[in-house]
Formats: sequence, C-alpha cells, structure tokens
Amino acid sequence: MGIHHYFKSLSDFEKIIRCPGKFKFQEHSVASHSFKVTKIAQFLGTVEEQGGEKVDWRLLYEKALNHDYAELFTGDIKTPVKYASKELKRLFSEVEEEMTKKFIEKEFPPEFRDVYLERFKEGKDETLEGRILAVADKIDLLYESFGEIQKENPESLFLEIYEEALSTILLFKDMVCVKYFLENILPDMLLERFIEQSELAVITEKMINESGGNL
Amino acid sequence: MGIHHYFKSLSDFEKIIRCPGKFKFQEHSVASHSFKVTKIAQFLGTVEEQGGEKVDWRLLYEKALNHDYAELFTGDIKTPVKYASKELKRLFSEVEEEMTKKFIEKEFPPEFRDVYLERFKEGKDETLEGRILAVADKIDLLYESFGEIQKENPESLFLEIYEEALSTILLFKDMVCVKYFLENILPDMLLERFIEQSELAVITEKMINESGGNL
Amino acid sequence: MGIHHYFKSLSDFEKIIRCPGKFKFQEHSVASHSFKVTKIAQFLGTVEEQGGEKVDWRLLYEKALNHDYAELFTGDIKTPVKYASKELKRLFSEVEEEMTKKFIEKEFPPEFRDVYLERFKEGKDETLEGRILAVADKIDLLYESFGEIQKENPESLFLEIYEEALSTILLFKDMVCVKYFLENILPDMLLERFIEQSELAVITEKMINESGGNL
Amino acid sequence: MGIHHYFKSLSDFEKIIRCPGKFKFQEHSVASHSFKVTKIAQFLGTVEEQGGEKVDWRLLYEKALNHDYAELFTGDIKTPVKYASKELKRLFSEVEEEMTKKFIEKEFPPEFRDVYLERFKEGKDETLEGRILAVADKIDLLYESFGEIQKENPESLFLEIYEEALSTILLFKDMVCVKYFLENILPDMLLERFIEQSELAVITEKMINESGGNL
Amino acid sequence: MGIHHYFKSLSDFEKIIRCPGKFKFQEHSVASHSFKVTKIAQFLGTVEEQGGEKVDWRLLYEKALNHDYAELFTGDIKTPVKYASKELKRLFSEVEEEMTKKFIEKEFPPEFRDVYLERFKEGKDETLEGRILAVADKIDLLYESFGEIQKENPESLFLEIYEEALSTILLFKDMVCVKYFLENILPDMLLERFIEQSELAVITEKMINESGGNL
Amino acid sequence: MGIHHYFKSLSDFEKIIRCPGKFKFQEHSVASHSFKVTKIAQFLGTVEEQGGEKVDWRLLYEKALNHDYAELFTGDIKTPVKYASKELKRLFSEVEEEMTKKFIEKEFPPEFRDVYLERFKEGKDETLEGRILAVADKIDLLYESFGEIQKENPESLFLEIYEEALSTILLFKDMVCVKYFLENILPDMLLERFIEQSELAVITEKMINESGGNL
Repeated sequence: MGIHHYFKSLSDFEKIIRCPGKFKFQEHSVASHSFKVTKIAQFLGTVEEQGGEKVDWRLLYEKALNHDYAELFTGDIKTPVKYASKELKRLFSEVEEEMTKKFIEKEFPPEFRDVYLERFKEGKDETLEGRILAVADKIDLLYESFGEIQKENPESLFLEIYEEALSTILLFKDMVCVKYFLENILPDMLLERFIEQSELAVITEKMINESGGNL
Repeated sequence: MGIHHYFKSLSDFEKIIRCPGKFKFQEHSVASHSFKVTKIAQFLGTVEEQGGEKVDWRLLYEKALNHDYAELFTGDIKTPVKYASKELKRLFSEVEEEMTKKFIEKEFPPEFRDVYLERFKEGKDETLEGRILAVADKIDLLYESFGEIQKENPESLFLEIYEEALSTILLFKDMVCVKYFLENILPDMLLERFIEQSELAVITEKMINESGGNL
Repeated sequence: MGIHHYFKSLSDFEKIIRCPGKFKFQEHSVASHSFKVTKIAQFLGTVEEQGGEKVDWRLLYEKALNHDYAELFTGDIKTPVKYASKELKRLFSEVEEEMTKKFIEKEFPPEFRDVYLERFKEGKDETLEGRILAVADKIDLLYESFGEIQKENPESLFLEIYEEALSTILLFKDMVCVKYFLENILPDMLLERFIEQSELAVITEKMINESGGNL
Repeated sequence: MGIHHYFKSLSDFEKIIRCPGKFKFQEHSVASHSFKVTKIAQFLGTVEEQGGEKVDWRLLYEKALNHDYAELFTGDIKTPVKYASKELKRLFSEVEEEMTKKFIEKEFPPEFRDVYLERFKEGKDETLEGRILAVADKIDLLYESFGEIQKENPESLFLEIYEEALSTILLFKDMVCVKYFLENILPDMLLERFIEQSELAVITEKMINESGGNL
Repeated sequence: MGIHHYFKSLSDFEKIIRCPGKFKFQEHSVASHSFKVTKIAQFLGTVEEQGGEKVDWRLLYEKALNHDYAELFTGDIKTPVKYASKELKRLFSEVEEEMTKKFIEKEFPPEFRDVYLERFKEGKDETLEGRILAVADKIDLLYESFGEIQKENPESLFLEIYEEALSTILLFKDMVCVKYFLENILPDMLLERFIEQSELAVITEKMINESGGNL
Repeated sequence: MGIHHYFKSLSDFEKIIRCPGKFKFQEHSVASHSFKVTKIAQFLGTVEEQGGEKVDWRLLYEKALNHDYAELFTGDIKTPVKYASKELKRLFSEVEEEMTKKFIEKEFPPEFRDVYLERFKEGKDETLEGRILAVADKIDLLYESFGEIQKENPESLFLEIYEEALSTILLFKDMVCVKYFLENILPDMLLERFIEQSELAVITEKMINESGGNL
C-alpha cells in the first residue's frame, strides 16, 4: 500500500501512446494529452465565465486532469471495440470502475479513498464542467489529427478521427465556449498555410537580389 | 475491398507495441513477436517430430504466423482487463470474431474468404499444433521478460510476467518439446552471466601486462 | 493573432526534453512533467486540507499547470547558467516576463490578456499554493532522478539532482504535506527492491518442482 | 553451444534496420520484414493453389521465414556493394554459407544440424516456392518504398527502389500470383488518395452547416 | 581532474538536440552538426585556397570542430533569448567564458590548459578562418531547415530559419567561397525535385508495358 | 553532378548506426563517431607535439574527419565478414575505392577531384598522423563499449569489443600519446564508480537529519 506507488504510476502515462497500431509522424502520450486537455479546458472555462456562466474551477481541473486515469489499468483499447455493443460497453465500464476501486483500496490510506474515488470517476457528465471536459478532450483530438493531416499522413484514419472529433464538438454547439471555438479558433486552424518548396526559389532570389548579388 | 488493404495493414503490426504503459529498455512490436513465435514453433515442431510425433507443418505455421491477428482490430488490451470476468472474456472473443469476419468480408474477394476465416481463428486449440503455439507464444514472452530483468529493469511487473509465462509452459510439461526446453534451453538462459565493471580492471591489467606494459 | 496559435503551441511542450545533454534511460517532456507536477500538487493540497489548511484550489491548479510556461520561449537553459550570477538571473527573469507579455499581446484577444498574464506569472511565491508548487516540482524531479539511479544510470549527475531536489524539499519541512511525504512516501521509494537475475534461478526451480518436474 | 543462443539471437533481427544510411519516415526491421514476407507468401501460395499449382506449404513457410537469416552474421550490406562484381558476390555467398555453417555447428546439437543447414540455405531457387519467395520479398520492398513516397520522402532513392522491386516482380510475370498482384492489388495501391488540407475546410464547413450552425 | 572526463563529455554532444521545442522530421545533435560544419568548412577552405587565399588549415579545423563547445555548459538556449538585449548577450558570453575556463582548470592538467583555452574561444572572428566558420555554420543550418521544408514540415519557423541563415551567408557575399556557394551549390538545392505519387502510376504502367504485360 | 549532393550526403552519416543488429542502451551514428574521433585525435596530436614530435595538423584533421567516408557507399558491414578472408578483404577495399572514385567523378567538378581523392583514401597508414588516427578510432570504440558495460548491457559482445579495441591500442604502445592514455586516462575510466540504490537511503537519511528532521 502506498502513495509512492501512486506517484510512481504517473510515469506510466508517459508510456501509453495514443492511437496505437497506426503510423504517426508525431506520437502523443496520455500524460501529454491530459496536460493539453487541462490547458484547453482552462481556456474554455474562461470563455464560459466571461459569457456569464458560473464555473466550478476546482471541479473542472479535477475532471480534466484525471479524465483518462482508467487507461492505467486497461491500456488503450481501440474505440470500435470498446463500443462494439451496449453490453460490452456496460461490462467494460464496470471493469474499469472495479479496477479503479481496487487500486485505490490497495494504494491509498483510508483518509484519502473517498476523495480519490470521486476524482477517478467518469468525468463527462451533464454538469457545465463535464461538458467542457467533453469538448476539450475532442479539441485536443482534433489538433492531433490535424497535425497528422497537415504533415501529409496518408492514413485516411486521421480524417475519420478529425470528423469524429468535430461532430462530437458540434453536439455541444449551444455552449458559449464551443461557439467561440467555431468562430474564432477553428477558422485560423483551417487557414494555416504550407510552405511550398517552390516558394523557396522565389524567396531566395529576392534575398540575393536585395543583397546586391544575383543568382 | 481489396487485398491491397490487407497487405498494407501488415505494417500496422509494426506499430502495435507489446506491454504498453510500462517503461521497457527494449520494445517489441506484434510483427516482431509473430516472427519470433513462428521461429520458435518451428524448432519445437522439429523436436516433436524427432520425438515421434506427426506434425502438420502447414497448420503449425498458419497458427503461429496469424496468432495475434485480432490485435489489428482490438489493439493491445491489458490481460487483467481481458480476463476480468468470464462474461467479459466471452464478449471480447465474440467482438474479435465479429470484427475479423467483417474485415475478411470487406477486404477479401469471395474465393479467399473461407481460407482466411480459418487462418484468423483462435489457434490455441487441443491439437498438437495448437499446443506448440501456446508454448511458443509463452517462450517468446519469457525471453522478453528475461531481457528486461537481465537489463535490470526495476519494474516488478517483468518478474510477474516471467512467472506467468513459465507457469503456462509448465502446464504443457508432458510434451516432448517442453521437456526439451526445460532441460536444454532454460538452464542456459539462467546461467547467462553478467559482465561486471569490476572485471574490466582485471582484464585491462592482464592485457596491458601481456603486451609488455604496465598500468 | 489567435488562440489557435496558443492551442497549437501546447504541443511544443511535448518536444522540450528535460535535462538535455545527458544520457537518460527514460526521457521526460515538459508536457509530461507539468501533468505529473499538477497531479502531485493535487495530492499535496489534499494533505494540507486534511491538516486543516485552507487551499485555494483554483490558484493551486493554475500555478501547477502553467509553472514551466516560459520554457516555450527560452528552451531548457541549464540551471548553473541560469543562476550563474544574480545579475544574469535578474536579466533572464526580465526577458522571460517580456517574452510572455509579448506572446499574450500577440496571440490573445484583449478580453483574455489580464487573466493569462496572471496565469503565466512565476508561481512559486510565499502563498500556500506557491509553496505546494515548489515542493511538487521537486518531488517530480526527485522521481525522475530516482528512476535513472534505479535503472543504474552511471552519470553521477543524477545523484546530484536527487540531492538538490531533496534539499529543496527539506526547506519546506514544516509544511504538513512535506512531513507526510518524508514519513509516508519517501521511505517506500527507498525500500523499492531490485529483481536480481540470481533470484530467477531460485524462482524457476521452485516453480518447476511444484509443477512436479525438476530442472 | 545451445539452442538458447539461437532463441536469443532472434531478437537481434529486431535491431537490424533495413536500408541504413538514409532518412526514412518509417523504419523497418529484418524481423518485421520477415513476418510480412511470410504473410505475403502465404497469400501468393493460396493464389497459386487456386490456380491449380501444387504448393509445398512446409517448404514455402520455411523459405519465407528464414530468407534473411544470414544478415545476422553479415549485417545489412548495401546492395551495390554486394553485387559490385561477380567475384565479390561469389566470395560473399561463400562467407555467408561458411558463417551459417559455423553458427549451426556451434549452437545446434548434432540431431538438428542437417535440418537447420537446409532451412538456412539461400531460398530463392527455381522451385515454385523459391519463386513465390522472390516475389513476396520484392512486394514487401515495393510497399516499403511506396510508404516513403506516399509520405513525401524527398530521397529519390525510394523511387529507384520502387522501380527495382517492380522490375524484379515483372521477371515472374508468368506466374499466376504475379498476374493476380498486377491486376488486382497494384492498381489499388496506385489509386490511394491523399487527404489534402484544403479538403478539411470543405468538410468542416459541410459538417457545421449540417449541424445547423455556420462557420 | 582528468582528460577521461573530457573524453567522456564528448558523448554529451550526441544528446544535445538542436532547435528543441519544435516538431522536426529529422533531429540533429550538436555532435553531428559539428561534424558537418567541419566538413563544409573543409570544402569552403579548398575553394578559398583555389581562389588564391592562404588558409591556415590547423586554425580552420580547430575553429570548426570546437565552435559549439560551450553548449556543453549552457545547453541549447533559444536564439531570441540569447540576443534579447545587448546586456544579456554580454553577460551570457561572460558566463560561457567563465564556465569554459573552470572546466579546463578542473579537467585539464596544466600543460594543456593554454592550448584548450585557445581552442574553446569564440571562433567567429574577422580572420579568413573565422569567416569561413561563420558561413559553414549557416550553410549547415540552411540544409537543416531545407530538409524540414522539403519533407513538408508545416512549421513556418523553418522558413524563418532558412531566411535567417541565408541572410547571414549573404553578409559574406564578397568571399570567394560564398560566391561559389551561391552560384554552384544553392541553385542545385533549389532545383531538387519531388517524387509525386501521381508519377508512380505513369512509371508503373510504362514498366509493365515494356515488360510485355498491361495494367 | 554537384557539391550540393556532397553536402546533402553528409546528413546520411547521421543515419548509419554503428554496431547494428545488437541491443544498445545508447546508439552512435557515424557522424557522431567521426566528430569524437577527430576531437580525440586533436588531443593525442597535442600530446605528441608536447612530446617533441612534429604533427602535420592539416593531415591529421583530414584523416580523422574523413576516415569512415566509404561507409556512405558500403553501409556498416560486420567486421568478421569484412575480414573473413584476405581475398574478400582485398576485394572489399577495391570496391570501396572504386565507389569513392566514381562518387567523386560524378559529384565533384574537375578542379576538386584530386584533393578529394586524397582526402577519402584509407587514412590509417604508417605516418604519425595515420597512427594517431588508428589509436583515436579505437579509443572512441573503447568508450562506446565501456558505456554499454557501465550501463549493464548483458551482451558479452561489448566486452569483446572492449578487448579488441584495447588490444589494437596496445599495438601502438610505444607512441607518446598511447603511453599518456594508458597512464593518465584509462585508469580514471576504470575507477568510475556506480551509484548504488542502497547509497540513496544513507544519503537521504543524512540529509534529513542534517536538516533537523528524521526519517
């Protein structure tokens, strides 16, 4: 029993790679993903707050930070498997809960158990904070898939992921923060330009000419 | 539909890393594992044959080569999850079968479907070939965990894996090839020696002296 | 200008490797480190709260999550350089502040600037939350160096880092959470045992004997 | 002497990287390559069998599985060197054979030597199985080079490899399985489409509109 | 004290990655960079010599080989930080000098100190050799950024680096070797062509036709 | 034809990994190796010079920098193969020479051909500079193998490499610089101590006690 094992296990999240079994130009760990989701949730919460909503910040941070905790026990199971049937999904959630509970009982002294049971619960509920988490999680996924598409990853899977992430975000399109995202952030992502090698010749010639030389 | 997608998917096995979520000095892909299991099964089959058993080589190779094919669809699910309950295990097997069937129907022309349905079935049955596969699979796992222990990986998980692999092999201890493994191969593994840094000083001094110099 | 650039920059933290220029068995990014520090701060805050302190959770999470934000602009400057002289340290801090300010003015719309200027400030102040951050930051560093020592990294640097991290933690030894760490967590870390290869022979023999065979 | 050394050496194939000395987006080990070649040979054999040929499956699997075994002793020598002169090629083959023989005599007990000498022989002979191996080896090479070209690797070497692989496959164009490959598999490979970043804007707008919003 | 520590520290240069904190398709260490800069300087020196200049080769090699030595102590500080203010730059250079001096005094026996103090000095002075080094350093940087642009790295940073490197080279446009570079080498770099996937279909069809078959 | 291709090929040396086909904790490229050999040769040359020898520095740097150039064409052929027979070794050398010559004729304009033919020649001749190169090459190999042994690499190959490197160095034991190495550098390498995990408990307790606390 011991918090030492809990602290040590944090490093395991650096070793769970998201979207296994596919070539990716840039890999992302669950640790990095959790960091980015929490940062994105922080921004979305700020937008909600400026839009007049009351944000429970402690709750929001707890949900974002811990939202993939169960992957420590289950690994990264491919989504189509996880959701193959309602029965499997239900059983699966039960197993996750059971394993989380056992871990907490094994490693946490009694005085911390209740608070950690609460923290490691599924966070995507109907509260404002649960909905912000659901959106933040998909925004990071959108950026991950965009990063691969932008680097010209030929796997069509990444377009499917992009679409799946966007369609989930759109389910929350009545939220102030989602409106902000759709109106102010997504368009900039789509406008990102590429450097074409052909530009290099133009730029180079211009620079050489300006320096008084010629190519 | 197309065999092209099947051929292309073979490369995905190079991207499924075994035992995710734990620090390892040397990582192994499912592609590499399948290669090694098939080579080990080849040797075990040879021992069985010399021991008087009749080996169906075509079947043995098919089983070994394809034994982790379903991981293409499911990813690498942690064992404790997979076997958390009989019901979950049964459902998982159903999902795997279903997904394999769908993949074959989508990608393989009709004339190849039956043969590939057969090839992608769970191979660890009660036949001699199924039992050789079960042993070969665990021998490679034993070598993987031994490799980490020998490199001084401090994770106790690898000792648990070593024990789990060995105990499964021992279930088949009446097989000729398992006897051979326990008597002729495992002892050499356990006798592997380390190079201690302290030896270096001794060796170095000896070499310098023999060359006529002195340290 | 745009929050898109802010969101995209989060991925750069996955590419800043801590402690560059030294061989490490396991590398850690600033993104992973930030995740772990926030999780550790969460636990330390819980201990403080149970010890009767009033924790401002929003502030604690903000400090932990953003504490290395300036590395986006400066990269990972080696500590001895950063602290080579008071004058250099002061100038560096000014440069960091200046760059952070410029980034916020360039990328954040006016309505978010104040809140992000506050969030990206140096977080290790005299508040309870600032002190928890200082401790959490060093606990993760302690675990990083412990991980290398445990894997037998021959670089003496990691012992120096271990000592430096511990001595900083000890500066806060009057805090409830530091007492908890020293009494309940650190001893478990130090008791971690190694698996010796020699144990394998004993375990293996025992298992084979119990299975009714012999080696 | 010992099969343990043979089993342990299998892991070295995971550490021989194909096509060294060139930037590649995705690296492939000899272990992975051998796995894929065996799987491809399995499919090609099935096509031949359905085309009325008699396939010796045991032989085919042995050839495919072991076809790069000599690289354990020689490493990955660049093809232009290997084939620089007939004399060098001949000497080289002799050295490979000699080293394989020595390894077998050193590590294999007498009762296994003959079977392994046979297994580790050059497999690309005039038999049906030898020709299937020759084709399967080049199909995997074709996929490796296609993968780099598709990911926009600017090295023209990969186009040369693509052409070299295809021209070797074409030498066997009278085989049923090569016809099948040229008619049913290669065209699908060439039709693979890219996702263009510009498509993203279209898809995104469509999805947002369909959800009742607008960008 | 000891040259052993100096020899051992050489390996640390393999662990300092250039341009940290950004996604790169191909990473370069300071060790590799130093090797390439020295090779490029060797060529530029040859051009200067053929152009009638007197090259002090010993000095040129010393400058090129050691030009990034101080990064051992400072790590890779981002350029905008390093040059944020004149005062910081000055202080920074002082710190580098101080640390280099301390290292030499600690690790080198007295008889080698003067020669190494000289060798580890800032090499980019007004001498011919100092100017060749300045150009060679930027040519390697130009190739690094070109490599990323050619592989379609979407980070605009690499275009900025390309421009910054070229503009520095142009400062030396009166040197014989820079003229040679601008007239004979840079144009070939800009003419590098890409292999387009669409070409593959054409090439493939042509090859199949020529072999007497058809696609 | 073009120096651009020569400059671009320098990056290929970053992709040739030394000692392929074996698990290594730390991999080294030919680019890094060449850098380190040149730095070591620089030091050895300094020792020779202080010992009264006349060093041709230009020649020494050229030899060290270019000594593995032919690996660009041949890749990293395993030593036992390369030296399997005198005839093979002779043929290999001829092929290397031929390929180097062809490369120079293809890529270098006529005015640079002679100087580069000279530079890319086998450098380990009987001159002082050739002998310094031979020693420097083996000292870096000694450090590479020492690094693996010190990190507890269980492959006995690295002890063999250590011995092979040392025995070659000892062939030159009459050189001033080898004497210096054996007397002043090697002993420090052998005295390198390990940090034992058990030390941590002692250090930690001491630090806590000194801070006024207790564990």
